[in-house]
Amino acid sequence: MPTIQDVAKKAGVSVATVSRVLNNPSTVKKITKQKVQKAMEELDYSPSILGRNLRNSESRMLLVLIPKISNPFYLRIVEGIEENALEHGYNILVCQTHSKTERESVYFDLLRNRLADGAITMDPTIDKEKLIHLAKQFPIVQCSEYDKDKSLSYITIDSELAAYQMTKFLLKQGHRRIAMVNSDEKFLYARERKNGYLRALKEFDAAFEENWIYRAANVTFEEGQQAMRSLLNREEGFTAVFAVSDMLAIGALKELNIQGISVPDEMAISGFDKIDFTNMTFPRLTTVAQPMYKMGSIAVEMLIKKIRGEKIEDVILDHELIIREST
Amino acid sequence: MPTIQDVAKKAGVSVATVSRVLNNPSTVKKITKQKVQKAMEELDYSPSILGRNLRNSESRMLLVLIPKISNPFYLRIVEGIEENALEHGYNILVCQTHSKTERESVYFDLLRNRLADGAITMDPTIDKEKLIHLAKQFPIVQCSEYDKDKSLSYITIDSELAAYQMTKFLLKQGHRRIAMVNSDEKFLYARERKNGYLRALKEFDAAFEENWIYRAANVTFEEGQQAMRSLLNREEGFTAVFAVSDMLAIGALKELNIQGISVPDEMAISGFDKIDFTNMTFPRLTTVAQPMYKMGSIAVEMLIKKIRGEKIEDVILDHELIIREST
Repeated sequence: MPTIQDVAKKAGVSVATVSRVLNNPSTVKKITKQKVQKAMEELDYSPSILGRNLRNSESRMLLVLIPKISNPFYLRIVEGIEENALEHGYNILVCQTHSKTERESVYFDLLRNRLADGAITMDPTIDKEKLIHLAKQFPIVQCSEYDKDKSLSYITIDSELAAYQMTKFLLKQGHRRIAMVNSDEKFLYARERKNGYLRALKEFDAAFEENWIYRAANVTFEEGQQAMRSLLNREEGFTAVFAVSDMLAIGALKELNIQGISVPDEMAISGFDKIDFTNMTFPRLTTVAQPMYKMGSIAVEMLIKKIRGEKIEDVILDHELIIREST
Repeated sequence: MPTIQDVAKKAGVSVATVSRVLNNPSTVKKITKQKVQKAMEELDYSPSILGRNLRNSESRMLLVLIPKISNPFYLRIVEGIEENALEHGYNILVCQTHSKTERESVYFDLLRNRLADGAITMDPTIDKEKLIHLAKQFPIVQCSEYDKDKSLSYITIDSELAAYQMTKFLLKQGHRRIAMVNSDEKFLYARERKNGYLRALKEFDAAFEENWIYRAANVTFEEGQQAMRSLLNREEGFTAVFAVSDMLAIGALKELNIQGISVPDEMAISGFDKIDFTNMTFPRLTTVAQPMYKMGSIAVEMLIKKIRGEKIEDVILDHELIIREST
């Protein structure tokens, strides 16, 4: 097996330069990079991650823990994470936790064993104690969903405010009976969005009953469709629905289409996140734009600073109401 | 740090049983599993992957290499892979290659360093020679997109036949000027689907010109929309479009909506894959159903057999035409 020394010799550069090509390519001149890459190819050299790991205790791998990759909301964040990680010479490993402790634990082992240098987690609610414990030893950043414990860093948006503004928009349009499709209130964002929704209703003296909130077990189309079916069955005379996720809203919209209920004339509906598909539905979905790509990108900046031992501040990004034809 | 021996002692079982709970839980009785898990929790025991790795040279991790996770087609396959991997006591690491050799190489290092026991790749075209070389040393299964080299195993569908049948369906509806939205013909599936499309056209003596095929650089909505715009600009009087991916078809449908062209009256359009969203568009998209979940699930079976040193056969799964309102 060829070594890094062989590559350096063949390329006529120092071992440190080869290492930089491998670990931090943006710091190496293009022509040097090409020489080194050519030497590696000719020698069929493949850098050993494990070897690298033991040599300088850097794996140049970052873990990205997400509940479910089938939600496009997370995907866009992952894109932001990956692009910026690559810029900094890191690769990412995407790990699906399904919000289960056992799964998360297996992936955190990669961190414990230094096979990854840090982790970005989008589902920190599953085992808070463990996460706090782990965050004391390893670089971890919470992204989007987060826990407020002050030993943990996070980047997110102001969910309460966004939900308040969207509900207020519906109220200003004249709606007075507004249902909510929420997700599981074990999530902080679900609790915060509910608070924002309630604050707006209160401000406008609008009616409210606890069972006007449908709590979706999963953030999927099917659940959104089921939610709408269930809300319609209550015959409460709703004229608008505020859903806390685009996936749920698109599922609900589907059910309205099936039942021949005209949107927005007979029922207005709004989503949350601004995933690409909200622009493809009929009618196009009103939603709250989250800066998902930017959130991922900044999360990486924060994580890399942590890896370097620098101090970081928590970040709350701006959101934006996107008013389209569904309301 | 507690050891596996400590756990066994506390749970009152053998070390082998604890190991089975960790590595092959489906073979352990529920009550035993609970005892062991309780002991692990009480001792705060976390199995070391690296340790496990060195002990029995098994990481119980599988790599899943996909070009881009933002395509829901791959996600559904990943779901099938993950569910079945878990059943067998394996976890998966999702690796996005962006069809780039360097990226792929970094992830294959995990295999070389035994940090993963095998890999399922959905983008084997990027460096065929390397893949063949690697597949001689490590368990690898190609899923969906594949290379025909006989040293490589694969599971896929018959793309040529599916494209032939869909085009024939459009021809039977009376369409005689049918455009195609293909992806990059460096992909085997793109070449095969083109062949199927051409075979059907020929059979019906339908007109064809090479520039009736739009070649999308990426499989995204934006490209689909761009494709439709470009095809309409040619003013060739197309009455139908066959797209090789639902993402492209949904983008194209969007452009037709924008331009006020009625679907299917003025233009029929068909997709490929049957991702969930095809059921949410307006009108709902006619498409070719690929058994994505099953494909992922069987790919894992094949890979695990390979890991165990068993012989496996290549698999071609059935597809199905799903006729809906867009044609």
